[in-house]
Parts: sequence; structure tokens; C-alpha cells
Amino acid sequence: MEDTKKPWAGRFEKPTEPSVEDFTESISFDKQLYKYDIQGSIAHATMLAASGLLTEEEKEAIILGLKEIEKEIDQGNFSFKKGLEDIHMNIEVALIRKAGEAGRKLHTARSRNDQVALDLRLWTRETITQVSTLIEGVQLELAQKARAHLDLIFPGFTHLQHAQPVLLAHHLLAYVEMLERDKERLADSMTRVNRSPLGACALAGTTLPIDPETTARLLGFSQVCANSIDAVSDRDFCLEFASNMAILSMHLSRLAEEWVLWISPEFNFIELDESLCTGSSIMPQKRNPDVLELLRAKCARVYGNLFFLFSLMKALPLSYNRDMQEDKVAVFDIASTVTASLSLLKKVVNGTTFKPENIALACKKGYLDATSLAEYLVTKGLPFRQAHEVVGKLVRRAVQEGKTLKEFSLDELRQSSPLVDKGVYDFLGVENCIKHYKGTSSTSPSAVRERVGWWWDRLWESKKA
Amino acid sequence: MEDTKKPWAGRFEKPTEPSVEDFTESISFDKQLYKYDIQGSIAHATMLAASGLLTEEEKEAIILGLKEIEKEIDQGNFSFKKGLEDIHMNIEVALIRKAGEAGRKLHTARSRNDQVALDLRLWTRETITQVSTLIEGVQLELAQKARAHLDLIFPGFTHLQHAQPVLLAHHLLAYVEMLERDKERLADSMTRVNRSPLGACALAGTTLPIDPETTARLLGFSQVCANSIDAVSDRDFCLEFASNMAILSMHLSRLAEEWVLWISPEFNFIELDESLCTGSSIMPQKRNPDVLELLRAKCARVYGNLFFLFSLMKALPLSYNRDMQEDKVAVFDIASTVTASLSLLKKVVNGTTFKPENIALACKKGYLDATSLAEYLVTKGLPFRQAHEVVGKLVRRAVQEGKTLKEFSLDELRQSSPLVDKGVYDFLGVENCIKHYKGTSSTSPSAVRERVGWWWDRLWESKKA
Amino acid sequence: MEDTKKPWAGRFEKPTEPSVEDFTESISFDKQLYKYDIQGSIAHATMLAASGLLTEEEKEAIILGLKEIEKEIDQGNFSFKKGLEDIHMNIEVALIRKAGEAGRKLHTARSRNDQVALDLRLWTRETITQVSTLIEGVQLELAQKARAHLDLIFPGFTHLQHAQPVLLAHHLLAYVEMLERDKERLADSMTRVNRSPLGACALAGTTLPIDPETTARLLGFSQVCANSIDAVSDRDFCLEFASNMAILSMHLSRLAEEWVLWISPEFNFIELDESLCTGSSIMPQKRNPDVLELLRAKCARVYGNLFFLFSLMKALPLSYNRDMQEDKVAVFDIASTVTASLSLLKKVVNGTTFKPENIALACKKGYLDATSLAEYLVTKGLPFRQAHEVVGKLVRRAVQEGKTLKEFSLDELRQSSPLVDKGVYDFLGVENCIKHYKGTSSTSPSAVRERVGWWWDRLWESKKA
Amino acid sequence: MEDTKKPWAGRFEKPTEPSVEDFTESISFDKQLYKYDIQGSIAHATMLAASGLLTEEEKEAIILGLKEIEKEIDQGNFSFKKGLEDIHMNIEVALIRKAGEAGRKLHTARSRNDQVALDLRLWTRETITQVSTLIEGVQLELAQKARAHLDLIFPGFTHLQHAQPVLLAHHLLAYVEMLERDKERLADSMTRVNRSPLGACALAGTTLPIDPETTARLLGFSQVCANSIDAVSDRDFCLEFASNMAILSMHLSRLAEEWVLWISPEFNFIELDESLCTGSSIMPQKRNPDVLELLRAKCARVYGNLFFLFSLMKALPLSYNRDMQEDKVAVFDIASTVTASLSLLKKVVNGTTFKPENIALACKKGYLDATSLAEYLVTKGLPFRQAHEVVGKLVRRAVQEGKTLKEFSLDELRQSSPLVDKGVYDFLGVENCIKHYKGTSSTSPSAVRERVGWWWDRLWESKKA
Repeated sequence: MEDTKKPWAGRFEKPTEPSVEDFTESISFDKQLYKYDIQGSIAHATMLAASGLLTEEEKEAIILGLKEIEKEIDQGNFSFKKGLEDIHMNIEVALIRKAGEAGRKLHTARSRNDQVALDLRLWTRETITQVSTLIEGVQLELAQKARAHLDLIFPGFTHLQHAQPVLLAHHLLAYVEMLERDKERLADSMTRVNRSPLGACALAGTTLPIDPETTARLLGFSQVCANSIDAVSDRDFCLEFASNMAILSMHLSRLAEEWVLWISPEFNFIELDESLCTGSSIMPQKRNPDVLELLRAKCARVYGNLFFLFSLMKALPLSYNRDMQEDKVAVFDIASTVTASLSLLKKVVNGTTFKPENIALACKKGYLDATSLAEYLVTKGLPFRQAHEVVGKLVRRAVQEGKTLKEFSLDELRQSSPLVDKGVYDFLGVENCIKHYKGTSSTSPSAVRERVGWWWDRLWESKKA
Repeated sequence: MEDTKKPWAGRFEKPTEPSVEDFTESISFDKQLYKYDIQGSIAHATMLAASGLLTEEEKEAIILGLKEIEKEIDQGNFSFKKGLEDIHMNIEVALIRKAGEAGRKLHTARSRNDQVALDLRLWTRETITQVSTLIEGVQLELAQKARAHLDLIFPGFTHLQHAQPVLLAHHLLAYVEMLERDKERLADSMTRVNRSPLGACALAGTTLPIDPETTARLLGFSQVCANSIDAVSDRDFCLEFASNMAILSMHLSRLAEEWVLWISPEFNFIELDESLCTGSSIMPQKRNPDVLELLRAKCARVYGNLFFLFSLMKALPLSYNRDMQEDKVAVFDIASTVTASLSLLKKVVNGTTFKPENIALACKKGYLDATSLAEYLVTKGLPFRQAHEVVGKLVRRAVQEGKTLKEFSLDELRQSSPLVDKGVYDFLGVENCIKHYKGTSSTSPSAVRERVGWWWDRLWESKKA
Repeated sequence: MEDTKKPWAGRFEKPTEPSVEDFTESISFDKQLYKYDIQGSIAHATMLAASGLLTEEEKEAIILGLKEIEKEIDQGNFSFKKGLEDIHMNIEVALIRKAGEAGRKLHTARSRNDQVALDLRLWTRETITQVSTLIEGVQLELAQKARAHLDLIFPGFTHLQHAQPVLLAHHLLAYVEMLERDKERLADSMTRVNRSPLGACALAGTTLPIDPETTARLLGFSQVCANSIDAVSDRDFCLEFASNMAILSMHLSRLAEEWVLWISPEFNFIELDESLCTGSSIMPQKRNPDVLELLRAKCARVYGNLFFLFSLMKALPLSYNRDMQEDKVAVFDIASTVTASLSLLKKVVNGTTFKPENIALACKKGYLDATSLAEYLVTKGLPFRQAHEVVGKLVRRAVQEGKTLKEFSLDELRQSSPLVDKGVYDFLGVENCIKHYKGTSSTSPSAVRERVGWWWDRLWESKKA
Repeated sequence: MEDTKKPWAGRFEKPTEPSVEDFTESISFDKQLYKYDIQGSIAHATMLAASGLLTEEEKEAIILGLKEIEKEIDQGNFSFKKGLEDIHMNIEVALIRKAGEAGRKLHTARSRNDQVALDLRLWTRETITQVSTLIEGVQLELAQKARAHLDLIFPGFTHLQHAQPVLLAHHLLAYVEMLERDKERLADSMTRVNRSPLGACALAGTTLPIDPETTARLLGFSQVCANSIDAVSDRDFCLEFASNMAILSMHLSRLAEEWVLWISPEFNFIELDESLCTGSSIMPQKRNPDVLELLRAKCARVYGNLFFLFSLMKALPLSYNRDMQEDKVAVFDIASTVTASLSLLKKVVNGTTFKPENIALACKKGYLDATSLAEYLVTKGLPFRQAHEVVGKLVRRAVQEGKTLKEFSLDELRQSSPLVDKGVYDFLGVENCIKHYKGTSSTSPSAVRERVGWWWDRLWESKKA
């Protein structure tokens, strides 16, 4: 019984109702913070000793005890107690069992309010690093596919209609660019994550002579939160993290959606390695891209958690409120969902085979060279708006006659515009379009080749590092 | 190894990549559907036998096997395998081990697509019943508190400012009415939940001579889904359930917010039994209403799940897509969150003590009788808009002089309006206001007394039933 | 200046800061409630006269004035004033100008709190009716297309992979069924919308002798809200309406997504009338299905408004809070978005042409008859699970040999299973599959024909009514 | 008629159905982009001339025409046509009317896809600057209030229960810190906003010899988007902007919630200038803080728009889809909501008066000095966990005896712990607690004074700049 006596029980005459323990406990999910909690407590004890609030012996006993507890949890030998509410109290009570008096001193000049903020910041910091690495893994696979298909012409889409020819490598690099911004956002957010709330205690600071700069330094933080009330009230860093994960998930859902399309019998642009497909319980012929569908679905899950967090924080008065306990439910689920998605996507990209023949057939549909023809007319002096109209009418005729543009004779083309000369055929057909593109952001073969190389070098270096 | 061979493996040469199994499995959460899955399979087997697709002996072997499996799961003796993806395959493979050939026939004229829709409908049906009962439990506690405080006058608020006096019982009944609508919505939704998708198979129905009306009847459904494609694509019933749970949670959050306010030292209208309070790790004097804060927070969690579901279903082509596997993550979390909240709230209401003296003091603030006075002037013939202005100015004066309205002398009151006579004092002060209210929806003592009795009888009957 | 003097100005010494007027006004959007506000005020005045709180002459003057104001607004001759905050005050002040003393009496026993609840309920009631009619318009067009293509076989999809053959008419009826549930939900919600809040006044009722049952009856409500505090606090009916609109929008987004796919060059199953397509500013050949994309997008807009509403109402203490003013921003936008979407969709369905030849080609891909073959083996006595495996392996061989299933010789098929006899060919090929389907919810030709007829009759009757 | 002929009409035989024009138009909301559209077009024309695609005369004619159009729109003299869909086409058609042939050349090497991305980036860039300035305005008012109340002790809250004494200035600075992070996030996002999409054209770039670096430089962008497909598909910058606005709005809602509480009769800590309050239509005495409630409500509105945007972008295939037109509906509403909220909040802070006497009374409740006493015991050598228990029991006794802690005699205190000596009284009572706080983030008087000064200097400098 002693075991689950609340450390705050002094003011209370009655024990807590068991259903309240069930409802308010967070140990079932915040136990995954244990490493951060122990890391934080070691730094706190170190600072307390330096400040004269612990003796060296007490500090050593605490650190030893905490390390033992960490090992027990690592090895699955620690017995978490729901009656002790959360990871903080579970560890503190275990420490007191191990370190006696010294253990009773660990919570000096600290509250669960700043402690949980600390743990969550340490967790977020590490999760950001982990997610960034996983993003680079996906980027590298994409760059590798781009490198393997440097010359493959692909139908570019707008409105899911054929628009203009692009290089497949260019399309794949579009994903790489998106993911790069996701990494940038995470990196930017780090300055706000990497601040130490310790010293804020419950909300006001403490009357004891502590040194928050020391704990911050020991834990690798770049600064101490400037205001103690804010330090325990602030969950911006969770919201910013969650928003960034949601944008990333949105990107993954766009890729997943496209690949679900590309793998359908109608598109048939790609094949997914069989080991990544699943079957049907009733339809014997099925090979389904469930992994891609689930990648798309996980985006919704991350969105849900984001909205959970935003709703949670709306209109909460300062400073700490227990509502904030639920923040971890959301961010933990976001992290596990996104890391699983990125790990899987890396395999999916790797296990995808493009089908050049089908893609080439698709490039014949939809008059992908129409804009190129209009631009050709511009070089002959026709204002673009008229060139657009001329080509629009020509396409209309082509559709009626069941022809491609390059199947028109020069005479037929000249009926549309006398500016046309035989050089026009150098601008028709997707191969010709592609070779004429200009500019570093365009799908010009040289620009794409260069950008693929740039990414490859950069990502490969990063991987080796 | 045989154990986790996929039932759909025929068309495949390669085994599934383990990380794909991890990413696509649902057994970790859909195992809680086992009772419904088994119930559905028993009905399905019964129908197959009646349709001549199973012999009586096969049917018996299947039912026996399923009941054994159910018992094993009940008792925690069943070994769930991630490689078998979901609850359906885990049970089917176990059944084949028990019942051999017969087990291999159970999936005749059925797909996981209609099977999971069935299980989820059975689960939703039962959850709706369970939530409705829990709502009535809360309503009964509220009615009981109302009954215990039939005459306690309470400051009615708009804009969190004092507005007019009400009876506390009337305020408590407002919650009862809200919750009643929540029950109504659940009851209405039942007609859409209670339809059997069986017979839809993958999406098209079957060429075998089955009888979906029989399975529907055996499972207590009121009808068979009319269209097989729709039957496996439809998750409306989940969205409707989730929306209804979100509205209910919103109601709980409003109550929780109010009670957090009432328990603050500034309001100090209620006290929560100590066994329902928790303390602070640092501040020795604290007794915090964490349960109420978490009740408020859980609303955000339900909202998040609702948005997850809506996002998930947006723009999914027909019919079944694997994205829909994630629906269960959301609805299961909603159900456990809401049922825990309702169970706890029942205890919270029961464990709450109102503080009549503090409430009476509050009723002296804020000129709660101002509207009553304006209405008195209306009975004397003054148009309401002028009466409003007269009283508004009088309140301004009262504020300046630090008086309540009934502390004005008759002369002073008559300076505001010569229509005032000495009968005015019968309309000033909250006790007088209360006694003059009229109409069944108002806070008139007789109306409230009657409504409390009506609710009490109804809820008490329902509880006994 | 008199014109914008606040009707509540009595208690105030200072005028309202203009930026506060800008921030708090709702007249810019709630003016669209004017008809309901006037309708409600006429009923209220009628009741006040019957209750002796107005003379007959006053009542007549009020009704006359209100009707004049209605006509002025109808004709665009009414000058809305932001300083008068909302539609209620704008009309009241105009009425006082017209009807003098009598006008000053209209607000007797009424508050804006119950008045706005009333207006919003009247608006919701009418909007529900309007949306239901629009849904039926879409259903009728879908039924008409189904009727026009009773025999067209279509590739049924799961996971966006070819699954089994279905009738196009069956697929179209799946949408009709979905939309029917949307109508059902709206009809169910009506019982909660159609309750009169009048009599609740600010929150407590009134001390004046009014008769809320009379106003309720005059306005066609089925009952009076039972509790005055609840009556002014309750926005469930908005949330329920918004949830139902969101589910409906989700359905529209699924249709839109499918049709965007079907119109792509890769699917090429449908053509949209040119008058419904739009072009590109740069690519002359483009004919884009923008209307379908926007239909899909509008779902997100409705979702956004839904979550706006849910967030708004979370944790608001009773009774009325000004936050609730924003509810109208959300529900009005939902209504205009959904009604525009439904109106447009009706035209889109009508303007869509299916392309039987392309659809027939698609039906040759993806081994749509594999399940039919497995079920054939079941009729020969093979347990389904083995039949599934036999056919799975056969499909694997067919893929390798580039064959369809019916291109296998009888000997080749018998190598898979000796149970096969020459009758097997009657089960291969999509035409054969289709004709063997059984059951009322399946895609069997007779079942589909019957259901199309049933819907047609019902919707046609409803349209004529 | 010529007027609304679509610039893309060449390929079309039929005119657009009017209801399609209504459904697809964006001019009703994107017209507010006109300045950015014209600014972009001037830069584009300048680049085209430098690249030899326009003559100097053509360029001049275009720029002249565009400037005339801008002036017409500024002055309300421009007639927007729905049939011309959007701001881009409306301006282009007007320009052609003014500049003839030259005007027909403006759309050379540009598509609406990159043009709208450009306009939206320019708009976002300016909006970020504007919002940042408004944030500083609020911060300055808060700093000013803090400066005016440097010594006012305030009850610090956790769980809306009294926790420890803080300085009001410290509480006000907590808001300032929050808002500072909001500004930081906006500044960080600028690097992703400030990239030029021009040159991407429809999605692939162009075959014409353009120079995107020049347009980027002319428009003040720091770089050109690296990938043309990504450039027209990317709406991250909108999502990031919207997320940042949502976090900011969350902060405003927390402040608003607190001030709604503080202004209630129960708290009564502040008074809001009457010019910022509003009244009731029925209750003459009311002075409601509607502005604060609406500030809280606007957070929900921003959230709704955020989730609209996230839903919109989920699972959209590359590159441009018409769904993305709706993004502007969301971001424009976010911007106007947030800027109005910030402008108003500045006035609200300025118009708020704190009530020192009521605040002082509140500081006597809730044993705010209990933690200070426990820390005192720590300095005497008692481990904190025991000190917590000692004080907890003492508070229990104090509650029973109706005493404050400092009302205990030394003997009584020593019964709790023999470590207590008469110095204890220097740690009891909120004034004593406050003076003992230590550390830069704590509510210590010197730290707060310093931080107030730091903020004041910084914000004042910024305002002057």
C-alpha cells in the first residue's frame, strides 16, 4: 500500500477513488518518456548539488538509483503503478525506495509542471532529429529512382488531365523538394523546442537558490525559458511540431494518392514489388497496394491528432491545467504514425518499378505538345494569346480527325497560321518538347540532370555522415 | 510458419515483407471485435447450411470451433498473430486448425469487406446502447441533485456575467435536457446502423445461392443493405456515431468548464469530494479538480477522432479501400473516451456538494432583479424599450451609490418613473423575482418542481427496467 | 445619430468605440435572417396581443410596420446600420420609427437570446427542406443514367484495382443509396430543430403572462423547448445540421473523385459536356473537369466549418455567450456551399456521357472473373479457401502467359483442379459472371433492373409532388 | 459579349454553362489580389522585354495599361466580370482592351498556375509583415500595463486554483513571451514564402528564353523555386501560415478566456472601459465583455479555416488541381480575422483597469504561501518530500480552524516541525513569498522589473522604427 501512497497525500484525509485513478492516470502512455525523465532528473540533481541543496553523496545516491531504474525499465523489470499517476511519480517513489532520504530531496525546486514540460521538450527534440533522418532516407530513394530514369519522359498532369511532357526524374524531384521544406520547418522549430523550462517549478519559480542555466547547459538546451508562468503553460512547441508533421503527412498522402493511381490497371505506370502487396480474402486474382492506401490514410490520423491538440489548448487559462496531460496522447501517436510511414515509404519507393512502355504510350495521348506549338508560334511573332487560340482550334480539328499534332501536314498546319514553317516539326512530339525546355526550375534535361546530381551528392553525403 | 500463411497467398510468389505486416496489421486493435466476428460467423454458417452450402455436420463443427475460440479469447488463451493481419483471418485460421475442411468453407460467399462492415455495425449497435445507459446514469444523478436543491436560488449567467436569478435545479435540468437530445440522436442513428451488409461479399454479391435475409434476421438487423457496392463502401454510420459522440462530448465539456469555475476560490459555489480530487507534487495546499479538467480535455480528443474519420473518408473512390481500416482506431478511441467520461461524471455529480451560503452571497451581486423591475414597469403600462432604459439608468445610479435596487426608497424609484408604486418591492430581490416567473420552460418554482418530478420518475423507471 | 443609439444604452455613459462596433457587428451576415426575424416577430406580437400585453391596434401597427420593412429589404431599399449590431436591432429600430410606442413594446418578454435561436431554427428548418429537394434532384439524374445503361458492364473496383464486374447501373445506385441516408439524417434531425425557444427570453423566462405554446403553434413548431436556460444555450441543432452536411459533402467528394478519375485520359470512361468544362490559360488543348475538382474541394470547406462550430462550442459555460454569434458564419457558408454543389452536380450528372467501348476494354483487364471461377469450384464441392488458392495460382500462370482465364483450355484448367468440367466456360468472362449473380443487394441484372425501377418511380413521384 | 469570351476558348465549340461560371468563379474573392497581380505582371513584362520577347514599346504599353487598371480598381471604377473567372483574366482582358497586341503578349511564358502562386506568395509576405506589426502593438500595450503595475501581487493559478503568488507584471509578460514566439514562427516561415514560382508556367517550365531570376529579383524574392512541378503544386506556405495563425489565435483565446473570468463578478479583478462593453436587449443592468468572448470565438474560426486547408490538400495528385482555388477563401478569412482580433485586443488591453483591492483580497485565499513554507523547511534541512507532507497537514489543520498560515503561533508551527524558528514568519504571506523568489525566469521583483524594462525598450524602439 505504501507503494502507491501519493507523494502529495499530506493535505488529504481520504484516499483517491480508484475510478479517478483510472481516469487521471497517464502512466499507461507517458512511461515512454522515462529516459528523458531520468536524464532530466540527473541534470537536476547535479545542479542541486552544485547549488548546495544536495550533498555530493546524496547526488551520487540519486544518480545511481536513477540509473538502476532506467536499466530496470529498459529490461522490462520495472513495475509501473497506476496509483502513482505518471512517469514522474513512479520514478520518484522507486528512487525513494532505493536512495531513501536523498530520494526525498530530488523534487526540491521542481514541480511536475516544469518536469513534464522538460521531458516533452527532450522527447520532441529527439523525435525531430529522428524524423529528419527518416525524411532523408526517403529523399535518397527518390533521388536514386530519378537517377535511374534520367531520360524517361512522363505525362505531366494538371487537373489529372494530360498537360505537358515532363521528365519522370523531374516529377520525383518535386517530392524531394517538398520533403526538404518539411525538414527545414522542423529545423526552424528547434529554436523554440530547445529551451529549458526547469526553474519554473509550479509556475512562479522558487525561493531556493537554484541555477537553471546549469541544468539547461547539462541538457544541451540553448536557453532557459524567460518566464516561469509561460514555461509551464506553453505547448506551442507541440502544436508547431504537430503542424509540421501534418504538412509532411499531407505530402506523403499526395505521393500515395498518385502511386495508387499509377498502379491501377488504367494507368499501369508502375509495379510494386510483390512482397509489398497484399491479397484479398475472396478475390483470388488481387494484388492490392494496401501500403499506399494506408500511407494516405495515416495523413488523416495525423490531422485528427493535430485538431485534438488545437482544440485542447483553446481558451485554457494560464498556467498549467490538467487538460494538458492529453497532449502526449496526440504527439506520441503522431510520431509513431509518421515514423512508421516514412520507414515504409522508403521501402515502397525502393520496391517500385516504372514501366517505360506504358508510360510512353500515355505520352501519346492528350496533345502534350500543344503548348510547345503555341510557344513556337510566339517565336515566329504571334502574340501568345492568339497563338493559344490558333493551337486550340487546331487541337479541336485533330480530335475530330483522330490525329496527333505531328500527323498534320505542313499545309494543314499552315492553314492554322501562315507563320508555320517546316521547322515546326522540331517542336512536336514529346521528345522534341522536352529538349527545348529552358531554365533551372524547368524540366529541361540538363537542368534535371544537374539537380539530380546535386541532390544525390548532398543526400549521399548526409547518409554517410 | 504454416500458421501465418496468408489465406490469400495463392497468387503470390513472394512472402510479405515483415515491415509491411507491421504497417498493415490491424489485429492489435480490431481484436476487440472478436465477439462480433464470431457472432457473425455463426450466423453466416447457419445460413450457409440452410442454403445447402454446408452440411449440418460442417455447420456444427464450425460453430463448435468458433465457440471454443471465443472462450480462448475470453480467457486470454488465444495467440493473436500479426502475420494474419486482422481478427477475421486470425479466427479463420484458428478455426481451420480446429474444424479442418469445414473451416475452409466458412468464407464461402463472404469477403472481409462485408465481414468487417458487419462486425463494426454490431459493435456500434452495442456501443450505442451502452452509451445511452451511461447517459441515463448521469441524468439520474443530476435529477437527484436538482431534487435535493429544489429551492436554491442561483445566479443565472450570460456572457459569464450575472443575468437573472434562476433555480439551481433549473440549471441542472438544462444539462439533463441536453443529454436527452444526445440519447435521441443515438436512437435515431440506430435505423442506419442496424442494417446487414452480409451478402455484399467483396462488392458485387455472389453467384452462390445464399440468403442474406436469414443472416440479417439471425443477427437482429432490421434490414439488409440494399446495394452491395454501397454496403462495403459505407462508413456513414461511423461518422454519424462519431458526430453524435462529439456533440455529447461538447455537452460534457460545458458542464466540466462550469464546474471548474464553480470550484475555483473566486466562485466557491461547490466542493468536490476529496476522494475525487488530486494534489500537487510541489504545492502542499493544493486540491485540484483534475477530473473535471480531463472531462473537458476529452472533448478535444473526441473532436480529433471525428476529424480523423472525416478526413479519412474524403474523396475515397468506391468501393472498399484499405484506408478504411483506420476507421476503427478512431471509433474505438471515441467509445472508450466517452464511456470513461460518462462513468466518471456520474461519480463527480454524486460527489459534489453545493454551498448555499456562498451562492446566496453571489446572488446579491450584479443586479439580477433589474429585468424583473423592467417587466414590472411594463405591467404598469410603460413600453418595454423605455422600461429598459429607465432601469438601465437606475442601475447606473445604484452602482455609483453602492446600493442594490431594493435599497432605493420609493421616492428614489419614483424619480426614475412615476409609474412605480410601493408594490414594486415585491419584484425586487432574487426571491421575489423567482416567485413571479411564469411558464413551463421558465425557472418558475412550480414548473421546475414539476419537471424535476417528471425526470425523476422517468429516469428512475428506466433504471429499474 | 438617434438612428444608431443602442436600444440597451440606458446603463451606459460612454458611446461604443467604433472599432468595437466593427468587431462585434453581425448585421453583415445575419441580415439574411430577416424573413425569419420578421416572421418570428409577427408571431410574437400576435401572442402578446392575445396575452393582453399589446392592444389590437398596437399589434396591427407592429405587423404592418414589419411587413413594410420586409418589403423594403426584399427590394433592397432598407439601410442596414452596423452601429445597430444585428438584424434584430436593425429591424426593431426601424419598426419604432414606423410604429412609435407600439414598436417599443415588441421586445416585451423577449431577448435577442431567444430571438436569434428562433431565427436560426426557422432558417435551419427551411434549409433542410431545400437541401432535401436538391438531393432528390441529383438522385433522379443518377437514376435516369442508371435507367439508360441497364446492361452496361463496368469494372468494379476495390483498392482502385479491378475486383469483379458490376453493372454501371448498380454503381450509380450506390450513390443514390448514400444520398438517401443523407436525406434520412436530415429528416431525423428535424424533430430537434423544430422546437420553439421563445419564452426563454434572456435565459430564465419572464414574469409577464405570456403564452409560448401559441407562438410555437403560429410558427409551425412541434413543441416548446422544455428548459429556458437550455433553450438559449443550445446549438446542437446547428452541430447536427453541420455534421449531416459534412457527411453529405463527403459523399459528393467520393463521387467527384471517381469522376475525375473516369474522365482522365487513362480511364477515359466518361465525357463531360463541353459547356461544363473549362480551359487552360496556357495549354491550348486542355478541357478540364474543374467543376468536379471544386465539388471535391467544397467538402473540405464544409469540414472546416464543421470544426469551426465544434471548436466554438467546446467548454462554453451556460447560458448564452457572444461566441455563439459566430455560429451563423459557419452554417450559412455550409448551406450556400452545399446547395451550390448539389445544383451543379445535377447538371454534371446530366451532362455526362459514358463510353461503352472504353469501359468494355477495361473489363477485359484484371481477371474480374476470378472470384466467379472460385465460386464455380465451390459448387463442385471444393472448400472456398482451397478454391481461392487454386484460382490464385491459375491467375499467376495466366499473368505469366499473358492470357485471360477463359483463354485457358479445359485441360489446362483441369490441371488446376480436376473438378473443372466444360461447364466452367459459362462462368468465365464478365458477361457470364454478371448473369450468375444472385440476391437483391447484388449486381444481378434482375435485381438491379428492379431497384432502378423502384427508385425511378419513387423519385419521379416525388418530383411531381 | 467579346468582353467575357474566355481567353482559352479556342478549343471549345460550346460556351460555358452560366451555372458553371457561378460555381467556378473566384473573382468574388481573389479580386483582393489585384495589387499583387499587377505588381507581378509588371515584373514579368519587364523580364519579357529584357529577354527579347517584348519590345520596349510593348512593355511600356503593358505597364501603362496595368497602372491604369490598378488605379481604376483602387477607385472602385473597374467592372469585374464573373465570366472572366478570376483576377488574372479580368486584368488580362482589360489590358488587351487598353494595350491591344501588346496585351495579348503578356501571358507569354506564364500560366495562371504560376501566376496565382506568385500572387498568393506576395500577399502572404505582406500579411506576415502586417500581422507581426500588430502583434508588437499588443505586446507594447501589455508591457505598458506591466510597467504600470510593477509591484502588484496577483494570485497565480494552476488548475484554476490558487497556486502561488506572482507579480501581475510577470503574468502579463507571459503573454508577451507567447506572442514573441508567434512572431518568430512568422519570421521563420518567410524563407519558404519568399520564393518565386514564376518560370514554372503550367507545370513544366517553358521552351521560350525567359529569365526567372530577373523576375524574382524585381519582386524582392530571395530565390526561385527549384522545381517547376513543385512550384505550382506547393501550398505548404499557406498551411504553414495558417498553422502559425492558429497558434497565435490559440494564444489570444487563452488571454480572452482569462479576462472573461477576471471581469466576472466572482473574480472582479479588472474593469473594461465602458466604450468597449456592450449591453443586453432585455437585461437593463448588463455590461458584457462581448469583445473578449468574440476574441475567444475567432480562434475557432481560424481553426476551422486551418482544417479546411489541410483537408483540401490531402491526397491531391500533382501538379495543379482546381481544388486549390479554395485555398484563398481560407487564408483570406484567417488574415482578416486575425488582424481584426489583434487590432481590437490592443484597445482592450489599453482600456482595461486592474482593481488592486480585489486582487489583494484574492491573494489572501488559497494558502498561496504553502510552497514557500515548504521551501523554508528545506533550507532547514528537511527533505522536500517530507516538507511537502508537513505543510500539507498544516494546511489541513488551517482549513479546519479557519486560519491562514501566518495566523498560526510559533508553537503551533513547531508542532508540525521542530525545525521551524521565528524566522518562518518572513516566509509567510504573499508579500514575503514574492520577495524571496530567485532566478531570471521567476516572478522575483528584480527579475520582473528587469524583463519589463527589456521588453519596453525593445518594443518602444521597434515602434519608433
